Amino acid sequence: MKTKKVYLTEDEMPRQWYNVLADIKMNPPLGPDGNPLSPDDLAPVFPMNLIEQEVSTERWIDIPEEVLSVLSIWRPSPLIRAYSLEAALDTPARIYYKYEGVSPPGSHKPNTAVAQAYYNKAFGIKKLTTETGAGQWGSALAFACSQFGLECKVFMVRISFDQKPYRKSMMGTWGATCIASPSTETQAGRGVLENDPDTPGSLGIAISEAIEAAVTDPSGETRYSLGSVLNHVMLHQTIIGLEAKKQMEKIGEYPDIVIGCAGGGSNFAGLAFPYVLDKINGKDIAIYPVEPEACPTLTRAPFAYDHGDYACMTPLLPMYSLGHTFVPPPLHAGGLRYHGMAPTVSQLLSEGILEAKAVNQLSTYKAGMLLAKTEGVIPAPETNHALACVIDEAKKAKEEGKEKVILFNYSGHGLIDLQAYDKYLSGQLENIALKEDTIEESQKVLDQYPKPELLKST
Amino acid sequence: MKTKKVYLTEDEMPRQWYNVLADIKMNPPLGPDGNPLSPDDLAPVFPMNLIEQEVSTERWIDIPEEVLSVLSIWRPSPLIRAYSLEAALDTPARIYYKYEGVSPPGSHKPNTAVAQAYYNKAFGIKKLTTETGAGQWGSALAFACSQFGLECKVFMVRISFDQKPYRKSMMGTWGATCIASPSTETQAGRGVLENDPDTPGSLGIAISEAIEAAVTDPSGETRYSLGSVLNHVMLHQTIIGLEAKKQMEKIGEYPDIVIGCAGGGSNFAGLAFPYVLDKINGKDIAIYPVEPEACPTLTRAPFAYDHGDYACMTPLLPMYSLGHTFVPPPLHAGGLRYHGMAPTVSQLLSEGILEAKAVNQLSTYKAGMLLAKTEGVIPAPETNHALACVIDEAKKAKEEGKEKVILFNYSGHGLIDLQAYDKYLSGQLENIALKEDTIEESQKVLDQYPKPELLKST
Repeated sequence: MKTKKVYLTEDEMPRQWYNVLADIKMNPPLGPDGNPLSPDDLAPVFPMNLIEQEVSTERWIDIPEEVLSVLSIWRPSPLIRAYSLEAALDTPARIYYKYEGVSPPGSHKPNTAVAQAYYNKAFGIKKLTTETGAGQWGSALAFACSQFGLECKVFMVRISFDQKPYRKSMMGTWGATCIASPSTETQAGRGVLENDPDTPGSLGIAISEAIEAAVTDPSGETRYSLGSVLNHVMLHQTIIGLEAKKQMEKIGEYPDIVIGCAGGGSNFAGLAFPYVLDKINGKDIAIYPVEPEACPTLTRAPFAYDHGDYACMTPLLPMYSLGHTFVPPPLHAGGLRYHGMAPTVSQLLSEGILEAKAVNQLSTYKAGMLLAKTEGVIPAPETNHALACVIDEAKKAKEEGKEKVILFNYSGHGLIDLQAYDKYLSGQLENIALKEDTIEESQKVLDQYPKPELLKST
Repeated sequence: MKTKKVYLTEDEMPRQWYNVLADIKMNPPLGPDGNPLSPDDLAPVFPMNLIEQEVSTERWIDIPEEVLSVLSIWRPSPLIRAYSLEAALDTPARIYYKYEGVSPPGSHKPNTAVAQAYYNKAFGIKKLTTETGAGQWGSALAFACSQFGLECKVFMVRISFDQKPYRKSMMGTWGATCIASPSTETQAGRGVLENDPDTPGSLGIAISEAIEAAVTDPSGETRYSLGSVLNHVMLHQTIIGLEAKKQMEKIGEYPDIVIGCAGGGSNFAGLAFPYVLDKINGKDIAIYPVEPEACPTLTRAPFAYDHGDYACMTPLLPMYSLGHTFVPPPLHAGGLRYHGMAPTVSQLLSEGILEAKAVNQLSTYKAGMLLAKTEGVIPAPETNHALACVIDEAKKAKEEGKEKVILFNYSGHGLIDLQAYDKYLSGQLENIALKEDTIEESQKVLDQYPKPELLKST
């Protein structure tokens, strides 16, 4: 019997996160006046200990014992060799996946939710607000807050709130409050509802509401929490790649290709950044973020300064962006419906250290079905994007007759997304084309802001 | 940081199942004529290699390499020390749980589904039929059949089919067909629908349909598969307890109390039977199957001969039974809504080797909520029954000031059962009382059959 899984013991968990800011040059975030932001500008939104992490350029940052203890509920996550998938593809490639679906909420998201809840608690904060699209992030923060005894309020995009009642129940079970966005609880929400009472909502609107709810709480004991995009979020996720490296080392392997799906960038960065460090240090390795063709931030959008939210409450961030007014089409991979991309991931792409890929919706479900029937596990629709790219690369390896080693991030399981598989199985899913003028429209929105410099880190 | 999880490597997986039939005396199953059944009588329903296992009295039975290989997708499952639950209960007890929620369908069920699919395939069978209540078993068999390239057809109890669409989608993703029972595809189903077109269905009816669909297939290449009750099912599940013993040995622990919820008996038996062997050999250990007060097979029903299904298609089995016409109340733990109990579990209870417990519905959700907020994981409603008993025992240990070691089976996660938690949270769940004349009515149904002997194994 071939051994499929590589485990680490809890003792072997990484004790430090890897901070890519130590190794790359970055354009600074800009305030409303167009000048670089100071840490104090962020203080109403985030606790100062997390702001310090956001701007830190230390390469290695200690993971607090209390964070490790909660992470150890499910970490280290297994690294799994996909023998059955390889056999089905008849490929000489060796395919490995890092299985982040073992966390209680079912995805990689709690890696940062736990850290953020801990730092907020340590700073004296009593309550966190956030937004959620498909529900993975809201569930993760609800779980993390329950572990540290914080209150938690989640603004969930209306269309997902209605379509995915299980996510709301999950958050409720962990003691969090989840309401549909836009809501009547915030000015931002009321404004949108006045114009369009039947709006399905969007992530950009929900972010605006969650920030407003945090900064207007008169107690001063509420802060906002974001599940992707920001530097400290990417930092917390690097435990994925650091574990994967240890696991591959144990079996004498090193990847030729590292692959992750990318919406805001956090699961991709979590797996990839420790390998980015190797690449910067001269290692020959290909690193691919994979996005939906219908929300092609990395493959087609401009590298620009833009807001992270619809109501322009966030600073201007240097990133590939389709424009903060872009409303992504109703893709079933809700976690990949975001107009922007983490500034760190964007910077690495702008320098050619990463190579972005885009895949269409049907190919992702086809890939997910193949994994379910071979490896036995049902991936989240987001994860299927990585998988579609993995299958392409495995086929290329076959054509070239090369024994490539492919590593990808299984960012979450699909058990709360089964209605999407149902639609695929009954032929109701289609590929979604981007409107022809999308990129021109994006450019118009972005033209009003300063341009980031094209920096070269290496 | 305290280590929470005890892992085994894939190399350390047990290579043999433990067969409790080697160590206890049993009343034989009876055919329609009231005489003991011969293996040949079962041949239209099961393949002969599984029938041989059903009647074998060998103590240790080798697990085929092909079965181990599929099980190793998720096995060995972790053993987890519930430090946070202990702290919340302020108990001197040390609480461990065997986490069967890591399997792709989310429960212990694939332990036997994989074995059954393998033996059917080896016997030349092309298609399996089965029934499912809450959906855990149907999903598990769909998964197993997809691994061995078998067709799979699942008759799902109508009320669950309508309430739990995700389960149907899960089976579909693994390539199985799932239809609502009663259906128009079988005589049994049509008969029920004629009398009551709006029936919610029952497990007993779905079993009748699945057996009929198997035995009437003219190709002769279809067999039926059952997810609980039978001896070979209990056998396949013992990998749970055998792993748990190895894991506890690694940390120098041995349980004072072993606890599992019991519907048909398979997850309970899986954890408990290896400890039953120790108890028969003189070890001082308490072993508790836990059932709902509203379906009190073990705590209140007679020990009798009865059919396993509504339409009396199964042999007469010696078991505690509420009568095969008993329709359990609409409990949210669908997996515990069965009128009978595995004959092996029944025999052990009749001899006093086990001590049965019953808990009410609200206490089980209260227990599940506590686990979600302490250990972070959301258990299946069935698992919550074991958990409610664990909490009772941990409180007793505190009162007595005793350092008891409690081991329970976390039979599955609750991610596809979140609507039940939602009902609990919104105050819509109630305790369900059994009708006063239930046991008298059961006795009337059972009086028509021979009585099993009260055998003493030790």
